[in-house]
Amino acid sequence: MQICQIVGYKNSGKTTLMNKLIYHFSAMDTKVGSLKHHGHGGEPSMLENTDSYQHMEYGSMISGVQGENISQFIFHMKLELHELIQIYRNFPIELLLVEGYKKADHPKVVLLRNKEDLSLLDELSNIIAVVLWDEVFLNENDYPAFNLHNINANLAQLADCIRRC
Amino acid sequence: MQICQIVGYKNSGKTTLMNKLIYHFSAMDTKVGSLKHHGHGGEPSMLENTDSYQHMEYGSMISGVQGENISQFIFHMKLELHELIQIYRNFPIELLLVEGYKKADHPKVVLLRNKEDLSLLDELSNIIAVVLWDEVFLNENDYPAFNLHNINANLAQLADCIRRC
Repeated sequence: MQICQIVGYKNSGKTTLMNKLIYHFSAMDTKVGSLKHHGHGGEPSMLENTDSYQHMEYGSMISGVQGENISQFIFHMKLELHELIQIYRNFPIELLLVEGYKKADHPKVVLLRNKEDLSLLDELSNIIAVVLWDEVFLNENDYPAFNLHNINANLAQLADCIRRC
Repeated sequence: MQICQIVGYKNSGKTTLMNKLIYHFSAMDTKVGSLKHHGHGGEPSMLENTDSYQHMEYGSMISGVQGENISQFIFHMKLELHELIQIYRNFPIELLLVEGYKKADHPKVVLLRNKEDLSLLDELSNIIAVVLWDEVFLNENDYPAFNLHNINANLAQLADCIRRC
């Protein structure tokens, strides 16, 4: 299973890019999985009147519910990224797109919104491509670069870059 | 990891008994997990404005979100019970309580609401205890029997019965 991270500061377009890439890979029949880090956003939003939420409230460490072709699980425990990734490895996922977890060392696409964000290029490991907002220019062409403004036109190229890395 | 099913017809009290048992085991420091089968109830209820739901809509086969001590996953694929159970086995769960999946062969507690429900005793395998509504009497005392009406007083005994089986 290949792993690619989509990272960048808050409001740099990670969520939108994740959705576009998931849609693209899924349309290309790539079996894609996704994982998002809420970061400082607190716990994930959940429906509180469901049985699985109630199970969690009553003390279930993992509460699951299966109906038709959907299964949903709430893990009420601290899980590290490698433990989360292990869950995906048990299924026939070809590509796992991970939003966030900047400090992790998987291949990553970095979103750069402005000049101040350029410091990320020094701080982060394993960068395979950058996605730039209009006002950002790279002095040196160290990485394959894509413009967020035209990302729909360039999505197949970015996807190729991800799959080849 | 020990597995125990809680089964019975619709409205026989499965959800309430699950919650009580989860709470009891959790309070006893047993690492408990839970799994509910929606049966003919359709897909699980989910918040549709979350990123993980959107990921699923865009084609993600497994979409996860992690925030603080909670991780939530949506699996958009048909999973059999043994595949679902495998997910729990990767974590330090001591007891998995499963609501539903009557036809499966794990040890099970059967809820009996009325005389018509008694046929379940012939149809189901691996019964370790029965929980009876007031109007149900067993002719023969084949299984440890608990009254649903007094279940709070008998919960520790039922829990012992589950853990010993």
